[in-house]
Amino acid sequence: MSPFTGSARTTDAWQHIRVAREDGIVTVTLARPDKLNALTFEAYADLRDLLAELSRERSARALVLGGEGRGFCSGGDVEEIIGATLAMDTAQLLDFNRMTGQVVRAVRDCPFPVIAAVHGVAAGAGAVLALAADFRVADPSARFAFLFTKVGLSGGDMGAAYLLPRVVGLGHATRLLMLGEPVRAPEAERIGLLSELAEEGRADTAARILARRLAEGPALAHAQTKALLTAELDMPLGAAVEMDAATQALLMNSADYAEFHAAFTEKRPPKWQGK
Amino acid sequence: MSPFTGSARTTDAWQHIRVAREDGIVTVTLARPDKLNALTFEAYADLRDLLAELSRERSARALVLGGEGRGFCSGGDVEEIIGATLAMDTAQLLDFNRMTGQVVRAVRDCPFPVIAAVHGVAAGAGAVLALAADFRVADPSARFAFLFTKVGLSGGDMGAAYLLPRVVGLGHATRLLMLGEPVRAPEAERIGLLSELAEEGRADTAARILARRLAEGPALAHAQTKALLTAELDMPLGAAVEMDAATQALLMNSADYAEFHAAFTEKRPPKWQGK
Amino acid sequence: MSPFTGSARTTDAWQHIRVAREDGIVTVTLARPDKLNALTFEAYADLRDLLAELSRERSARALVLGGEGRGFCSGGDVEEIIGATLAMDTAQLLDFNRMTGQVVRAVRDCPFPVIAAVHGVAAGAGAVLALAADFRVADPSARFAFLFTKVGLSGGDMGAAYLLPRVVGLGHATRLLMLGEPVRAPEAERIGLLSELAEEGRADTAARILARRLAEGPALAHAQTKALLTAELDMPLGAAVEMDAATQALLMNSADYAEFHAAFTEKRPPKWQGK
Repeated sequence: MSPFTGSARTTDAWQHIRVAREDGIVTVTLARPDKLNALTFEAYADLRDLLAELSRERSARALVLGGEGRGFCSGGDVEEIIGATLAMDTAQLLDFNRMTGQVVRAVRDCPFPVIAAVHGVAAGAGAVLALAADFRVADPSARFAFLFTKVGLSGGDMGAAYLLPRVVGLGHATRLLMLGEPVRAPEAERIGLLSELAEEGRADTAARILARRLAEGPALAHAQTKALLTAELDMPLGAAVEMDAATQALLMNSADYAEFHAAFTEKRPPKWQGK
Repeated sequence: MSPFTGSARTTDAWQHIRVAREDGIVTVTLARPDKLNALTFEAYADLRDLLAELSRERSARALVLGGEGRGFCSGGDVEEIIGATLAMDTAQLLDFNRMTGQVVRAVRDCPFPVIAAVHGVAAGAGAVLALAADFRVADPSARFAFLFTKVGLSGGDMGAAYLLPRVVGLGHATRLLMLGEPVRAPEAERIGLLSELAEEGRADTAARILARRLAEGPALAHAQTKALLTAELDMPLGAAVEMDAATQALLMNSADYAEFHAAFTEKRPPKWQGK
Repeated sequence: MSPFTGSARTTDAWQHIRVAREDGIVTVTLARPDKLNALTFEAYADLRDLLAELSRERSARALVLGGEGRGFCSGGDVEEIIGATLAMDTAQLLDFNRMTGQVVRAVRDCPFPVIAAVHGVAAGAGAVLALAADFRVADPSARFAFLFTKVGLSGGDMGAAYLLPRVVGLGHATRLLMLGEPVRAPEAERIGLLSELAEEGRADTAARILARRLAEGPALAHAQTKALLTAELDMPLGAAVEMDAATQALLMNSADYAEFHAAFTEKRPPKWQGK
């Protein structure tokens, strides 16, 4: 736990998502399989708060985000979200849309890698959650659909118009966000949307294997790599090179770097401590 | 028509490009087939002005840009453009080069999708016009050539050094702009330069089908998606997420969003109005 | 030679890298084959200084960076670099990491194309040097490994977290920098990391052929294309279009542009002078 905790108490009782922890791996499961794991207002808020809590802790080394049942996540529920927003005033609409964006920022800001384990549909907000993750491990049943325009909304939702061109290029991103059509696993792999294509039915397993590997690695090095990737998308080259230099100088004082050298010299695997 | 019109009158009499309108689709044809649709000073100016006029109107829902005859567009004409620029003074050269850039900015700024329908050669300024479009629909005869260095000029022309790395990545963009070599349809598809590969001789038809589909869709959602894609290339993540939230809150007040919900509830297709 | 030279004298006596010049092509060879061309502090400094000197000269038209023996470059030496940094104080660590970043900035800033000729391993700093080059010509034996996390350091080293997402997209870049795994030639080609795949054992030859072609071309046009590609990654679209316009107006006053027109008119190949 970070020594810098405030008065608000943390919770283990997440009610709108299922959260499990084991050996540094946090598994978050969207678990409304009868609704294809459609998101509710409370599920967004829980994801936002969980990621903030985990970011203050020291124990999470990797997070796997998956969905129970036939698919990953069908996005915001038509009745519960779309219906409800039609009755909202301007301030409430801003509150809601800011909250969904906060989940994406929390995924990008948390100091551990996030792995989306995708099977079946990842639609709307579900597609953007996967997009915001560091890794997308999918099986051949996966299909991503940024279907916002199909409900009359902007394809730029929760940072999608920022993130997607940086992942697959502006041409593909324009097509996917403007048309809202499903992208199946082979195309997703071809255009760079997938990190790993798993065998049928094995997205969760492959994601867990990757999470285990990351969790056993040098956590501080992973955290800084992620932070720099996120930050340097928004920085000019000169500043990025300077940021890399300062970060590397910092990490060259870390226990893990010294441990690598000791292990190399003694011809044994390093024991990473994440500090 | 937007209520915010000034004193200058619009025109229907475009003399240097061919313009047709039907059911919300504007078709712009470069029509100097004997010169492979080489651009003239007047054609650039017409494209700039037409896009500005259409941006103030409400009727355009999609624009198809194509070329008559053997190819899409061979770029600036060697005699009419290159020869003429050799006689220009510094201010005139700046004027000319700013005008060509204004066409690209107009393509990116107009509030409807632009589809380049490419067959045969798309060279020089022709390649950049296609690059600036939201969609590039090409048939197997298409070849893109950013051949500026071959005439002794910079590969960064009309925003190409900005746009191309964002569409195909910095590695491919460097190769294409530095060497000026043609990229044929299969490679263009592989590196993400194409939105859709049509059958031989069917680029115009496929572009019209796409335009029809876009024109029948939610125009305001498309316009905002395009605006966010363009704007968020130049914004940091935090600002992009906030911009998405404000945009989405705005569109959640739109008639089209309410219409989606009504249509979904009544199990019928939505009737989009673009507002 | 640029007329703007200071008091410090240039050198031809590069001790830590091998430098050869012929007909405008500078060939730089990392030549510690018994150490897989592992970089030393002095080799970094020589690369930085050589590129700065060449940037002030007018003679270099293209630079080929290759490695002698079984591979391109294995990065910083574990003993000579990692061991040494463990004994450094904070200021020394910053100095070292800034120096390596300066090499990358020098590669991006020099006014001639840099071609990395890669066979075998390009690891750590070696992978980033290749990444910073304008062209990566590799044979099937090539494997790139951004293995910084494997030694407990950040994957963002020498600008890698800036450059790699802009070359291969954020998804692939995250995977490569976070996991540090080798990317072999076929995958490197597929994701856009390679400019050209040469036949087995022919990376150096193919790089020389490309360098020759570039050297025989319009050097000023190449220099400006490179400068704009580098600068416009960090500029908004409007500014980029304006920069292109000013650059193109400038080059339309160049001897090479007039020469193109004369040669075209006289139906002969142009004689490029680079001015």
